[in-house]
Amino acid sequence: MESSFTAGKSLDNDFRVFVDEYAHDSVDVVVRAANLGEFRTMNRGIAAAFDGKTICALSTPMGMGGIAVIRVSGPDAFDLANRVFSKDLAAVESHRAVFGILRNAAGETVDECLATVFRAPGTYTGENTVEFGVHGSTFIQTEAVRALMDAGCRHAGPGEFTARAFLNGKMDLTQAEAVGDLIAAEHAGAHRLAMEQLKGTFAKEITALRTELIGFAGLLELELDFAEEDVEFADRARFDQLLETLIARIASLADSFRKGNAIRDGIPVAILGAPNRGKSTLLNALLGDDRAIVSPIPGTTRDTIEDTCVLGSSKFRFTDTAGIRATDDALESEGIRRAWQTAKRASLVLYVLDASQDSVAEANAALNALEIGPETDVIALWNKTDLADAPALSGWESLSIAAAEGKGIEALKVRLEALGLTDDSESSIMVTNLRHYEALMESNASLVTTRSGLSNGIPGDLVASDVRQALHHLGTITGEIDPEDILDHIFSNFCIGK
Amino acid sequence: MESSFTAGKSLDNDFRVFVDEYAHDSVDVVVRAANLGEFRTMNRGIAAAFDGKTICALSTPMGMGGIAVIRVSGPDAFDLANRVFSKDLAAVESHRAVFGILRNAAGETVDECLATVFRAPGTYTGENTVEFGVHGSTFIQTEAVRALMDAGCRHAGPGEFTARAFLNGKMDLTQAEAVGDLIAAEHAGAHRLAMEQLKGTFAKEITALRTELIGFAGLLELELDFAEEDVEFADRARFDQLLETLIARIASLADSFRKGNAIRDGIPVAILGAPNRGKSTLLNALLGDDRAIVSPIPGTTRDTIEDTCVLGSSKFRFTDTAGIRATDDALESEGIRRAWQTAKRASLVLYVLDASQDSVAEANAALNALEIGPETDVIALWNKTDLADAPALSGWESLSIAAAEGKGIEALKVRLEALGLTDDSESSIMVTNLRHYEALMESNASLVTTRSGLSNGIPGDLVASDVRQALHHLGTITGEIDPEDILDHIFSNFCIGK
Repeated sequence: MESSFTAGKSLDNDFRVFVDEYAHDSVDVVVRAANLGEFRTMNRGIAAAFDGKTICALSTPMGMGGIAVIRVSGPDAFDLANRVFSKDLAAVESHRAVFGILRNAAGETVDECLATVFRAPGTYTGENTVEFGVHGSTFIQTEAVRALMDAGCRHAGPGEFTARAFLNGKMDLTQAEAVGDLIAAEHAGAHRLAMEQLKGTFAKEITALRTELIGFAGLLELELDFAEEDVEFADRARFDQLLETLIARIASLADSFRKGNAIRDGIPVAILGAPNRGKSTLLNALLGDDRAIVSPIPGTTRDTIEDTCVLGSSKFRFTDTAGIRATDDALESEGIRRAWQTAKRASLVLYVLDASQDSVAEANAALNALEIGPETDVIALWNKTDLADAPALSGWESLSIAAAEGKGIEALKVRLEALGLTDDSESSIMVTNLRHYEALMESNASLVTTRSGLSNGIPGDLVASDVRQALHHLGTITGEIDPEDILDHIFSNFCIGK
Repeated sequence: MESSFTAGKSLDNDFRVFVDEYAHDSVDVVVRAANLGEFRTMNRGIAAAFDGKTICALSTPMGMGGIAVIRVSGPDAFDLANRVFSKDLAAVESHRAVFGILRNAAGETVDECLATVFRAPGTYTGENTVEFGVHGSTFIQTEAVRALMDAGCRHAGPGEFTARAFLNGKMDLTQAEAVGDLIAAEHAGAHRLAMEQLKGTFAKEITALRTELIGFAGLLELELDFAEEDVEFADRARFDQLLETLIARIASLADSFRKGNAIRDGIPVAILGAPNRGKSTLLNALLGDDRAIVSPIPGTTRDTIEDTCVLGSSKFRFTDTAGIRATDDALESEGIRRAWQTAKRASLVLYVLDASQDSVAEANAALNALEIGPETDVIALWNKTDLADAPALSGWESLSIAAAEGKGIEALKVRLEALGLTDDSESSIMVTNLRHYEALMESNASLVTTRSGLSNGIPGDLVASDVRQALHHLGTITGEIDPEDILDHIFSNFCIGK
């Protein structure tokens, strides 16, 4: 992205866009390129990513502060930084900070600042890097970036520093994506998942799976080479067993997505109940906010209203739904349809009952009629307990609240926090990224086809093609999708002199 | 300020307050302390400012970004930072960055990050300093600061790093204040003034003035010591001349305040004119905004509406005023009184005329009746030139506009930019700070008293006391208010063996 701004204001906007997009688009550029098959021409090891230009950008949040950091990365980082800085940065050893003056093209002092030098390859991007620590005025931030651009730097695109780190082999794609997740993490759960992924735990598991699969594929390809000799290098029974194991492991990873995604983006909680039981009042009480419109008229809520809050170390995504009852009103019916949809997707349903109105029999009937998934928890909430005592309910977990008075809300929050914690196992790998989930599903589909192909005795070259598909999908997760992998493996492991 | 927050949210608020107050309150703590006479006990050279604690704070703006910097400063910086960091920072040489893991008190990984070590005294604060460059999520920022506080750091008060820099003799008070101004600078003019002040140009001038005055005071004190011998060390005529020069130089510095303040906070421009000439429309056109309420009813604007914008390298502070006419309406009269007040304080009056309505005679009469100061420029603006041509006006600079259509607004802005530039001389020292201005005025008052005392032949000890007053006021500007200065000067320059 060649930046074309000139005025201070539009530069600010560019920064804002950059910062806003950072988390989500961080490696989209790379992922897109990888999916388009452009990946191989710019594979890791290539010194200069994309256009080989040296890039610069404000790396700290926009706004006023004590310090701001402006990062320069690329093959000409020292030369271009030298054009704005009073000391020769090419002569400074790596990981060392020097004090000097940053000047613009007109020779005017922009700031007195620290410049820290990082020499390739031991840097974040894998390229020569300079970080300027300037005074944190918006004016200086803008002018320092402008001075670097005048000196010949290109303004970095969203996430481009991290993209270069990936392209230069400093991290794999899952780690690059973890950087984006880490920056966007708002609570301990999301932070821990991103941190785990950044450490490469998930990537290691995927690589291990791929390695086993590559060994298998290598044997298959070898058979093809010796097809006329009718050799069977690969023991079919062992193959079948290996595939079974792989399919189970990948399926288990894919299964963790629902959980992992809930931790990252919020555990989905549906607030359900008959009309006028105080569902919207409950939502407002939980959020400490007038998020939903509350009225004594049954059926006030038609849209599903959603909002999140962090309780303990977990984020929750609450959805207030339309009251469930038999109705002829088309609009209300649509609302009720959506309420059921929400319930099915939720990890937890809070079913709101009215202690002053609903009988135990009615409550049980309603709870038993809930259309929910097998993994959805349910808590019955007896509301309006300021008007009447909550009846005892057997077979269902229940709590007493008086949402309008805020009574029982804290106890409910404590219960939710506890639910969040049990969802948050530290030991196992969790998939949090839709892209990873889809690749795992695709990969597994190919493996299932491979397995049935093997057992049906279809020709080896067709089986090999299915395995390659599975390998490809696994490879897209970490960014290793080079089909030469398979050949490499053959040549390195099976030196048969052919 | 001992921070008492526990939740993430309140920590954010603390940061916000910190960032917001940074620019303005940066050295108020010190200035207040200095004025309270507490200064001497914590004068420069004292290793640990205030309480001797090691402080920490987020130094980059709050919000999401690629990187955030958390600064630790104080005698125990390395020890306390070591408690959260995976590497021994006490063993790292100064100005060097090392990569490691930042953990909280529970041993959980907060982030993988860079820590840069700065060893006293060659640091910003003059104390041992560690800067952690962490990933810029709000969660990590909060948790990293919390981890450092758990390790024993105190959260820094507003501007405390800069206050420590002053107290440790790394900069004088004017430079410390310049840091605050630099961070708050939104445009080139304010930035340049702050940069000049940060370089110490102003402080050098004040120090030079003080040195001359100290020499003078030294001679006076010496006379007092030898009073019984009736010696007159100091040549009275030379004294009078010196005082005259000093008074003139200090007055000239004080005079620059109006200009300097205008550059920093915005050049005041008053929009004046009879009712319904389109003054509010002009303000909106200049700001590109619907700032003022516009209606065809004369007298719509009653309050003075003020807003600023940056044109070229200068900031302008526009004030829209009530239309000037004879009226019995009490509210409107008050508005008109304020309009005149605004005009008197303005550097420039934009007098709006209606080309379709006002005659040249009327225009001249109105312009001649303007109640403005001697240094206020006036530009007559013929508005509504889409309805009628602008008549020629002699003796007054005039421009044609059609504010409602935005016609002529760009030309007006260009004219304003040029006015801003002539206001912005780079060569001379400019006072931008009200505190400095007041100290200069106080100092000069004491010098004027000294001079008249000398010419009236009042006793030497009374004259000496006035000089001490002048010295004190000059000293408060840079933070050197130690009365021992005078004694030091005597002992170093006049070794008479007594």
